Amino acid sequence: MSEPYVAELDFYVRYAETDTMGVVHHSSYVIYMEEARSHYARTRGYSYAEFEESGYYLVVSDLTVRYHAPARYGDQLQVRCWIAEIKSRRLAFAYEIRHYEGGQLLVSGQTQHICITKAGELQRIPQRLRDWAT
Amino acid sequence: MSEPYVAELDFYVRYAETDTMGVVHHSSYVIYMEEARSHYARTRGYSYAEFEESGYYLVVSDLTVRYHAPARYGDQLQVRCWIAEIKSRRLAFAYEIRHYEGGQLLVSGQTQHICITKAGELQRIPQRLRDWAT
Amino acid sequence: MSEPYVAELDFYVRYAETDTMGVVHHSSYVIYMEEARSHYARTRGYSYAEFEESGYYLVVSDLTVRYHAPARYGDQLQVRCWIAEIKSRRLAFAYEIRHYEGGQLLVSGQTQHICITKAGELQRIPQRLRDWAT
Amino acid sequence: MSEPYVAELDFYVRYAETDTMGVVHHSSYVIYMEEARSHYARTRGYSYAEFEESGYYLVVSDLTVRYHAPARYGDQLQVRCWIAEIKSRRLAFAYEIRHYEGGQLLVSGQTQHICITKAGELQRIPQRLRDWAT
Repeated sequence: MSEPYVAELDFYVRYAETDTMGVVHHSSYVIYMEEARSHYARTRGYSYAEFEESGYYLVVSDLTVRYHAPARYGDQLQVRCWIAEIKSRRLAFAYEIRHYEGGQLLVSGQTQHICITKAGELQRIPQRLRDWAT
Repeated sequence: MSEPYVAELDFYVRYAETDTMGVVHHSSYVIYMEEARSHYARTRGYSYAEFEESGYYLVVSDLTVRYHAPARYGDQLQVRCWIAEIKSRRLAFAYEIRHYEGGQLLVSGQTQHICITKAGELQRIPQRLRDWAT
Repeated sequence: MSEPYVAELDFYVRYAETDTMGVVHHSSYVIYMEEARSHYARTRGYSYAEFEESGYYLVVSDLTVRYHAPARYGDQLQVRCWIAEIKSRRLAFAYEIRHYEGGQLLVSGQTQHICITKAGELQRIPQRLRDWAT
Repeated sequence: MSEPYVAELDFYVRYAETDTMGVVHHSSYVIYMEEARSHYARTRGYSYAEFEESGYYLVVSDLTVRYHAPARYGDQLQVRCWIAEIKSRRLAFAYEIRHYEGGQLLVSGQTQHICITKAGELQRIPQRLRDWAT
């Protein structure tokens, strides 16, 4: 995967996503990262809603986030999201969140995922997702 | 229902529940009201989780909130919650949210609920909930 | 105000905005309404961030929401938002949230606002906002 | 710090904290961890609100979370929170979140913090916090 597909999602910071410090709350970025995954799947033609309807969940097993600089209400941000690794039973997404204008890096992160059935049984990563890596 | 049962839930404001204004975000009170309903059900011996397991949902059909004064991170609050009305197909909860110390009124509100099956069909309010009004 | 300016904001439902019922949590719509106000201000050329920088807050004093039908993760929604009333000391926004495709009405609501200084003193609604009604 | 002070916070999962999968959303645990820090400070006699009033912020610079097992609406959980490391310019909290009954481990995590002034300048960790490690 020398040059992975990168999905880019642009959005404005909502007021409710900020906190008393006057900046975006650190948990809000976790939701931005999740929405970037949704956007990734949509732009690759296989929405995560459709994936769930097929009987699977792609659950988060590990989360790491590094906070470089704050964002504020009304800022326009961009999340870049790509697949960092796919193995038979694990899938990792990587993220960079930047100011849309100027491109300052605000947050970088990674999520690890496993695939389970709705009954909770561990599965191999479905082929249709593994194809994303090629 | 001249003197309804009143459930009282005490809690601290979480940092994530505040916003750039330095106060509790107005949507956070909607979640406090919901948790007060959960607490109401628990203290009456019929948890809402148990109610859902019986095949029903009690969905919110209407919400009204009046904001009187702000709360801040770390404040200890108290929600008082009671049933304002039960009819065959509607149930209303009323709420008051106050500072735990001093008792200043911060928010008052009401939610209207209907009962549906998991398939989405409208139901009468189950007897076990209607008994709460007596 | 026979034909008020209407701002339209389209967006996708985020996974985190749903709940165990499999639908959008009722508090999430309160945040959609707020973001619609932000969008309203941006499209009228006076962002709310800029408004706050001028020393004022436009706080929510009353909220009413009616829930007509549920939305689910991944649905594309549209909020329509307009000024329902402006008086010297009060401002009301009205909202309709619909499925983007098909236009089914999901939620209707209204918020009442008052204007305060950062020190908490009640102010008249600034002229620049009152001009929005004309 | 062979035996650090451990703060224990018990609470019920709120409905709004769950998602379409029927479990607690992975971002909700980040907020539980934050509230555990608040509880830690309160039980050590120096609330974080008081700390902020003294002119400082303790911001999150790094977050790592491992998800072991899911929790559901209404579950009673316990967060255990302790200081994993204090250096002159860095402070790390560690967390374990378990089912209150039975003690099953659900989530483990760590947050790294730096101290800044309200003007955004990096500071040494104040002595009053460094005393927590002794």
